[in-house]
Amino acid sequence: MFTAEEKKRIPYKIYLSESELPRAWYNLRADMKNKPAPLLNAATKAPITKEELAPVFCDELIEQELNDTDAYFPIPEEIVDFYKMYRPAPLIRAYCLEEKLGTPAKIYYKFEGNNTSGSHKLNSAIAQAYYAKKQGLKGVTTETGAGQWGTALSMACSYFGLDCKVYMVKCSYEQKPFRREVMRVYGANVTPSPSMETEVGRKINAEHPGTSGSLGCAISEAVEAAQNLDGYRYVLGSVLNQVMLHQTVIGLETKTAMDKYGVKPDVIIGCAGGGSNLGGLIAPFMGEKLRGEADYRFIAVEPASCPSFTRGKFAYDYCDTGMICPLAKMCTLGSDFIPAPNHSGGLRYHGMNPILSQLYADGLMEAVTVQQTEVFAAAEEFARVEGILPAPESSHAIKVAIDEALKCKETGEEKVILFGLTGTGYFDMYAYEKFHDGKMENYIPTDEEIAKGQRNLPNV
Amino acid sequence: MFTAEEKKRIPYKIYLSESELPRAWYNLRADMKNKPAPLLNAATKAPITKEELAPVFCDELIEQELNDTDAYFPIPEEIVDFYKMYRPAPLIRAYCLEEKLGTPAKIYYKFEGNNTSGSHKLNSAIAQAYYAKKQGLKGVTTETGAGQWGTALSMACSYFGLDCKVYMVKCSYEQKPFRREVMRVYGANVTPSPSMETEVGRKINAEHPGTSGSLGCAISEAVEAAQNLDGYRYVLGSVLNQVMLHQTVIGLETKTAMDKYGVKPDVIIGCAGGGSNLGGLIAPFMGEKLRGEADYRFIAVEPASCPSFTRGKFAYDYCDTGMICPLAKMCTLGSDFIPAPNHSGGLRYHGMNPILSQLYADGLMEAVTVQQTEVFAAAEEFARVEGILPAPESSHAIKVAIDEALKCKETGEEKVILFGLTGTGYFDMYAYEKFHDGKMENYIPTDEEIAKGQRNLPNV
Repeated sequence: MFTAEEKKRIPYKIYLSESELPRAWYNLRADMKNKPAPLLNAATKAPITKEELAPVFCDELIEQELNDTDAYFPIPEEIVDFYKMYRPAPLIRAYCLEEKLGTPAKIYYKFEGNNTSGSHKLNSAIAQAYYAKKQGLKGVTTETGAGQWGTALSMACSYFGLDCKVYMVKCSYEQKPFRREVMRVYGANVTPSPSMETEVGRKINAEHPGTSGSLGCAISEAVEAAQNLDGYRYVLGSVLNQVMLHQTVIGLETKTAMDKYGVKPDVIIGCAGGGSNLGGLIAPFMGEKLRGEADYRFIAVEPASCPSFTRGKFAYDYCDTGMICPLAKMCTLGSDFIPAPNHSGGLRYHGMNPILSQLYADGLMEAVTVQQTEVFAAAEEFARVEGILPAPESSHAIKVAIDEALKCKETGEEKVILFGLTGTGYFDMYAYEKFHDGKMENYIPTDEEIAKGQRNLPNV
Repeated sequence: MFTAEEKKRIPYKIYLSESELPRAWYNLRADMKNKPAPLLNAATKAPITKEELAPVFCDELIEQELNDTDAYFPIPEEIVDFYKMYRPAPLIRAYCLEEKLGTPAKIYYKFEGNNTSGSHKLNSAIAQAYYAKKQGLKGVTTETGAGQWGTALSMACSYFGLDCKVYMVKCSYEQKPFRREVMRVYGANVTPSPSMETEVGRKINAEHPGTSGSLGCAISEAVEAAQNLDGYRYVLGSVLNQVMLHQTVIGLETKTAMDKYGVKPDVIIGCAGGGSNLGGLIAPFMGEKLRGEADYRFIAVEPASCPSFTRGKFAYDYCDTGMICPLAKMCTLGSDFIPAPNHSGGLRYHGMNPILSQLYADGLMEAVTVQQTEVFAAAEEFARVEGILPAPESSHAIKVAIDEALKCKETGEEKVILFGLTGTGYFDMYAYEKFHDGKMENYIPTDEEIAKGQRNLPNV
């Protein structure tokens, strides 16, 4: 257990000053020996070019997407100014949780929930909105799962005066009615996906009648809409390398804060959906590991219902169900995989960020799966002592952090555990209610279901 | 408008360090020449004694309630430790709002929403739970309006292992279903009020069939329950002097932060329901004014639908509809006044804290009323630039802060405006939706309605 001296030396919450805010995002690919494989044109199977991406994505974001050599991208002043509204995020020492668990482990978490979008998503949303505005666009389209990305993008677009059209995965749209209203406060237009508004939406509805949707479907619809609307581009809240790049602000702040207090994590844990928060948190630490300067253990936590790392194939695949996005080499359950409608809304994506997929394939990172009832039990335990009601997604990391801390209790090791608490669960109360009422079910896809999801893996 | 130098000198968010956290609450009464009138026993009309209060309230809280001479009460270490989990709260410079308004005014707000209860209420909840625990009690009962106090108390009770029974004003219970679930996560028992569980609840239901409830009703039910349950006491989230005492942590932190940066507010604005956040924010500044050390303008903002300061009588009245609490001398619409079921849930109380009532009667503070549609318009304007979705209650202060800033735009005055942003509106999305859909109505009680509310003012 921590001592009184330690409690004096290390505060509950470490806040950096504005001058300590990162001024550049860190591009982990620059330090990777095995670079992630290039994106391919879905039709020609050749590496995709900037020109081919330009009708869909913003120009400057394409540069960030494809650049795997420059280690740093300066953060524009306008974005730094916006960051100052809600960043630096606190790095919190979980004294109360440690005490409750009776563990000698020292637990830290980076809390990204102190902004109205309720999560880390705003870090990339503001960057993407900024580049869209700079390019003179009228608006952007996107998809959202749990609703956090959609809210974040709505906030960012409202700040820069851009239109924002959001396709929201149907099961989240129904589970989280208030999410839609928050987006509306910020002026966004929200449509449940699959819709009948797009060609791909109509096709998916016809093939899977009554489907509750998936991120893959919603992406396809948003991409199609961006191509059909004048002055619009498509922006994405996870999976892409550019998004992980923006999210490195999480890891960079965390590292600065830990260095300031002379703390070095032994194990770093993050939940994994598309991978952006996990990648953003671990990036600067992984960079040290890749450069041989330090060693850390990294654990990705994914829902057992959507196990991209642990049960997916590392192969080229479509990023969206409609197969209109470029192909990415990644850990994938197949673009035809439709995860069960459980409450890890933001983690229900069939694939995984290509950088993280490569790191996992190279044995530089571990991955585990957890069941949603044990996730909610951990969430509640955490909330009662740490005073933060966590999002279901974030609670995947909490569950494994608690498990690691309990192992330390058995062995007596004083490990330093760091995890990412990506957001708050205010809009997930239906899920908490279900858990309380004992009505929450766990889902594990069968091997057949996964094979079915992967039936259309492209032949590359 | 602010200059680049100013933006460099004063950060967007001022966070104090743990060592700068207040170590004592400030008892404003010690500096008042005209002390608030004593609480009276409702039956005998004589000043109430500690012994008479003991069956209802915790012993140490009674001491704090009645003591009008000691200027400071040390904050127990256990409470300071809990405060460190979510405090110090940031003092935010509203650069984005200033820019949007084009005002030369400098706007600051103290943001109390960065905790799961979503508001400042936790500051007093943890104190009251601590004293209940210290006294060896089994649990506490309370009422909640908007649900913020109930959530805060649930969190505090869960932390100290106390039972928590909450009577929630029926209209809020219906408007905010998720609030109930948050309280449940923290282990509380929640009942809509008026209920059929208590004698007073049954009586109110019989007299006002279909009533949507009020804080006054809910208080009566909670007090009755506390008296009937073994090892329980009643705790209250506002109105009482002890609550305002705990809330001075808001003003003390604010003053420390402003002093640190050499900033002096010209006008200090807070929303007023029972008065605890307003009183807590202004206390140290008002203390300076009372001691002749400085001068400030103070503005209490109340909903036009429940105008205790501006249209109430300054008189002894019952604190609850059931007339079982002590009498307090305060600005009151009468304990029979049942405000219209609008969305300023936390501001729907017929009375007002006795300290603030006395200050208002002595001309030391102003009060204004605002309509709920203009409040929501201000809330949305604020949310879009400052990135925080405010609670409807807090937005009353935002509305008047914006008005003051726009006056400065006309006169060119560079006034420093400080307001309290008491909480977030995540659980108020029905209200935002109603506003958006143009279905929100404004309510102004007639003189007859107020006279009816005051028909049972006690003869003292």
